[in-house]
Amino acid sequence: MTPFKLSEELLDQINSDIVAQNNKALQTLVKEYHYADLAEIFEALQIDQAVYLFKLIGSEKSADMLPELDEDVRESILDALSSEEIATEIEELDTDDAVDIIAELPDEVRKEVINQISDTEHADDIRELLTYDENSAGGLMAKELVCVNQNWTVTRCVREMRIQAQEVTHVHSIYVVDNKNVLLGRLSLKDLLTANEKSKIKSVYIPKVDYVTIDEEGEEVAKIMSKYDLEAIPVVNEQKQLVGRITIDDIVDLIKDEAEKDYQLAAGISSDVEADDSIFQHIKARLPWLILGLVGGLGSVFILEGFEGFMNHPSHKALFFFTPLIAAMAGNVGVQSSAIIVQGLANDVVKGSLFNRLIKEVGLGLINGGSLALLVILFGVATQQPTDVSLTIALSMLCVIIVSALIGTFVPIVLNRRGIDPAIATGPFITTSNDIFGIFLFFYIAKWFLA
Amino acid sequence: MTPFKLSEELLDQINSDIVAQNNKALQTLVKEYHYADLAEIFEALQIDQAVYLFKLIGSEKSADMLPELDEDVRESILDALSSEEIATEIEELDTDDAVDIIAELPDEVRKEVINQISDTEHADDIRELLTYDENSAGGLMAKELVCVNQNWTVTRCVREMRIQAQEVTHVHSIYVVDNKNVLLGRLSLKDLLTANEKSKIKSVYIPKVDYVTIDEEGEEVAKIMSKYDLEAIPVVNEQKQLVGRITIDDIVDLIKDEAEKDYQLAAGISSDVEADDSIFQHIKARLPWLILGLVGGLGSVFILEGFEGFMNHPSHKALFFFTPLIAAMAGNVGVQSSAIIVQGLANDVVKGSLFNRLIKEVGLGLINGGSLALLVILFGVATQQPTDVSLTIALSMLCVIIVSALIGTFVPIVLNRRGIDPAIATGPFITTSNDIFGIFLFFYIAKWFLA
Repeated sequence: MTPFKLSEELLDQINSDIVAQNNKALQTLVKEYHYADLAEIFEALQIDQAVYLFKLIGSEKSADMLPELDEDVRESILDALSSEEIATEIEELDTDDAVDIIAELPDEVRKEVINQISDTEHADDIRELLTYDENSAGGLMAKELVCVNQNWTVTRCVREMRIQAQEVTHVHSIYVVDNKNVLLGRLSLKDLLTANEKSKIKSVYIPKVDYVTIDEEGEEVAKIMSKYDLEAIPVVNEQKQLVGRITIDDIVDLIKDEAEKDYQLAAGISSDVEADDSIFQHIKARLPWLILGLVGGLGSVFILEGFEGFMNHPSHKALFFFTPLIAAMAGNVGVQSSAIIVQGLANDVVKGSLFNRLIKEVGLGLINGGSLALLVILFGVATQQPTDVSLTIALSMLCVIIVSALIGTFVPIVLNRRGIDPAIATGPFITTSNDIFGIFLFFYIAKWFLA
Repeated sequence: MTPFKLSEELLDQINSDIVAQNNKALQTLVKEYHYADLAEIFEALQIDQAVYLFKLIGSEKSADMLPELDEDVRESILDALSSEEIATEIEELDTDDAVDIIAELPDEVRKEVINQISDTEHADDIRELLTYDENSAGGLMAKELVCVNQNWTVTRCVREMRIQAQEVTHVHSIYVVDNKNVLLGRLSLKDLLTANEKSKIKSVYIPKVDYVTIDEEGEEVAKIMSKYDLEAIPVVNEQKQLVGRITIDDIVDLIKDEAEKDYQLAAGISSDVEADDSIFQHIKARLPWLILGLVGGLGSVFILEGFEGFMNHPSHKALFFFTPLIAAMAGNVGVQSSAIIVQGLANDVVKGSLFNRLIKEVGLGLINGGSLALLVILFGVATQQPTDVSLTIALSMLCVIIVSALIGTFVPIVLNRRGIDPAIATGPFITTSNDIFGIFLFFYIAKWFLA
């Protein structure tokens, strides 16, 4: 199979079918597509047409599509539905997806929708899930899971599971609890398939099970699940009672979002923005960083003005030709060092003391900076630069690279210790401050060396 | 649970137990830890000690740890084992992990190891998997899966599955094939649990199943699985015969690696390197990009030398103070635009023509650049800069930002169309070339404007 690609022809056909109100044709056509593909179609339609089609396709399919839609498209569609219609959609969804969508609704609509859900257990589950922080295990989990009592026999277990399984999309592990719903362990499908039918669950279950508590941070859950290759993890409360389950598909999205967020911050893009978002969203995400860069850059203008005297010397004025190079190298090295630390912190591989890490960066800076300094000297010889100017530039290059590497290492580690996302240190913030530091250091060394 | 953190005390204890050859104590201690945690312990040990401990812990646990180890640690440990010992480890692993490890062995050792595997079917499966490109579906898949014939009854199906399930770590979907092993559909655990025992599989299976062909690219498989929330996907050959299965845990690693690779390239780090790797590996990953930056930066030196004449004018010399600012803004904007495109291409959201996209960037550049140009003029007024110089800088800022955004958009799209990874365009490559373009444009506009 190849993933679906939305063609102009398909879109034109849907558009004209909507205009002509060919409802039968639309219903037949929609059946062919996976809900994730349908979401792409809906995002390409105009809102009125999207709402028309949405009401036509039946909640079994439209509900699954809702979590896949862009937030603004989803908002526009839900705006056009009554709270009763929204409740019908919500009933089709697992509690984790249901709660994500309900959380986006305005307060008054939210209550109305929940009250209209006919399955009161589902409604209660949603009310419970709404109380948790969306970035915690409680906010990520679903209430749907398959759970058996340790005192049941395999036969009873299979019978009860048949009932529970009708509510659960993917079974994954079967959790084993005692009479007080305290999590004891798990039963793999394999165990169940190979166990004697008369055995008690007590005698066949695996008493070891990984779990997270309800207030664990989402990022931490992602780390645990990906490190230990888990496809689902049970969530317990303070009494170790089983309250929910997180599945790997939600974690895949979280890992992807996390990595993309770090990457965007490194590129100087603050909020989550995609290529096809509006110009206004792009401005909001990008302009603040550019202004930060501008303000920082104006700082370097002042520094350079302070060293204007060098321009009066026939060979020293060359320093100004090399300034952008020094600034660029300071920025490049700072971004490298900080990216290594940010990724290391995310993957828990930054061990040892800050001091040892800085020493390592000095070593690295000596070798990288030394190599580049040598190239600068060779360039000076080739272009018949005066020796003192060449040496000044080479020496500054070495110092700037070491200092930039230290700043790039130090800043994210310190931010992280203070509970601030270190990824903000990898972008324009570090380039700009390293530019200024680099330029200042360059001219300061020159002043001292060429005096 | 909290993920394991390796403490100094634990490491000291293991070290002294190894020196004292307290084998019993070591074996007891090792049992407590998950294989993913053991891998961390092994990575912190010296090689001799790691090999000693490895031989002590029994292949059931040590085998699972092997795929989790850093490549160089794994290589050192396997170097110290005989081909027979390696074969014992390999027998414990699923075919997908087994083949990844065997592929790393030197040619002659590889053959010896495979010949020593006592389970000939396992050996044949590994030989088959070795023939596929490691970045294709064939290279990612495992041969272990649960598969039933459409002509079986539910009862027979459960019986056969009991046998197959003993070989398979996670069952996920049950695939349904015909007598020629052609993939027909799937049977979910739910279906199986709720079906009548005498029904034929033919009448209860779901005839729709997502699958990939054996030569599909790994990145494409990851996109399909994460888009359609699949936890496992069957792999078929050209005759649509079922040949293997890819599970989500391998895809999670791939998605993570992919996102991290893009991020590292954006930061000017070429090969996969982590905070705790050796200085030598860091130099290899970072120095080439710095040299690229240096060479580019030296280009800007030539450009600036060409405009030396401006230094002789009392107010025009200010242009040199503003050069690092202009270069930095060119770099920042280029990185923003290219990162948006690279992420958009990775997520398939870059639609529409290149021309439309460039037009959008011009619009964005006009607004962002216009705002920044205004700030530059205000700064000029505040610092009593001559008006012509202020206007030159503001106008150049606007032009440089538009041109940089265009370059940042154009380059990754063109690279992608030519089959080159567009992520290489987001790092020092784009900053350096935008620096040069920016500086040249700045002085060229100044020359024309101040003439």
